[in-house]
Amino acid sequence: MRSTLFDLEKTIRQRRTADPSQSYVAKLTARGRGKIAQKVGEEAVETVIAAMASDREGAIGESADLLFHLLVLLADMDVPLDAVLDELDRREGVSGIAEKAARQPD
Amino acid sequence: MRSTLFDLEKTIRQRRTADPSQSYVAKLTARGRGKIAQKVGEEAVETVIAAMASDREGAIGESADLLFHLLVLLADMDVPLDAVLDELDRREGVSGIAEKAARQPD
Amino acid sequence: MRSTLFDLEKTIRQRRTADPSQSYVAKLTARGRGKIAQKVGEEAVETVIAAMASDREGAIGESADLLFHLLVLLADMDVPLDAVLDELDRREGVSGIAEKAARQPD
Amino acid sequence: MRSTLFDLEKTIRQRRTADPSQSYVAKLTARGRGKIAQKVGEEAVETVIAAMASDREGAIGESADLLFHLLVLLADMDVPLDAVLDELDRREGVSGIAEKAARQPD
Repeated sequence: MRSTLFDLEKTIRQRRTADPSQSYVAKLTARGRGKIAQKVGEEAVETVIAAMASDREGAIGESADLLFHLLVLLADMDVPLDAVLDELDRREGVSGIAEKAARQPD
Repeated sequence: MRSTLFDLEKTIRQRRTADPSQSYVAKLTARGRGKIAQKVGEEAVETVIAAMASDREGAIGESADLLFHLLVLLADMDVPLDAVLDELDRREGVSGIAEKAARQPD
Repeated sequence: MRSTLFDLEKTIRQRRTADPSQSYVAKLTARGRGKIAQKVGEEAVETVIAAMASDREGAIGESADLLFHLLVLLADMDVPLDAVLDELDRREGVSGIAEKAARQPD
Repeated sequence: MRSTLFDLEKTIRQRRTADPSQSYVAKLTARGRGKIAQKVGEEAVETVIAAMASDREGAIGESADLLFHLLVLLADMDVPLDAVLDELDRREGVSGIAEKAARQPD
């Protein structure tokens, strides 16, 4: 299994307190929770637009941006990526296909 | 390293062609690219709102929903998760802290 | 000039304190700022998706939903629509084309 | 009744074909539907964040940005603002409080 997201999470947590003139993560973090959340929202919008334009390269780049900024936001809330993956495992394990079938896409 | 996201990606790809009455993934996929993209956008908005409300449990649940629907969207575009992680590795490897320092949070 | 948005603003402000079982505005307002803001974000996402799909009827319906929920959100913050229009007038009056030319679409 | 939004719609339609080096609307329009839609999504996210932060001045500015870019998007689809207001009038007139009561905020 790849360690990309966990390595990135670790790097982000280290950079948070770095010199903002040397680190994008430190610079963004210094601007506050609202700015980090804004980036998550914006990258999601760009992912949506790339998908609607059937732009595969764009979707890869925007999805990478979205995951990166989501990790910055989770770090800002001191939420480990593991907690999010635990939640995904829990849903899949406890209920699996049956629960999914019951969910309405509304 | 955890295999959660890769297991989930595999499950989602298998379910896409399942009976829509038995599978949420099949049901959502049948509604088309626009509906899947809409869910990605909505879950990102909910993640943003949970973060702004300092709601850690909410942020965990909404981030899980966001990752889940992002994987459904990538599957719909036939983009493997590996391609997105390759992009994250590439950025970190080629440029690292220097590139990040150069990025403007705008 | 049409009074649609001002009439709607007035109606929304009146309904906020109505019986939640009789009024959508009262029901949504009772769920809190986060739920109202979530609807604004979701309707914007749906407008984006309709636009990308070149769905004119969809764009009309989603834009109407977006304006409606934006008015509910502004009412929840006790911000009059006039304050937003004053801001638009101010930008256009003070600076007009020159300022716009200077803006970068990033 | 104020003519702000209709004046703005008219100005935007005139600027669309102006010199992109002199007009923000022309510059953004030249970048295509996806870029305009992206701005609508981003301004909605910023409005949501200002609302969650109880930032009234921010909410006024971001709502103005959202309305401005929504008008640019509607112009790009050749949808008149009147069509959106007609839809709002129709909903309020035909059904009013009763329909609203039936709607679920989900």
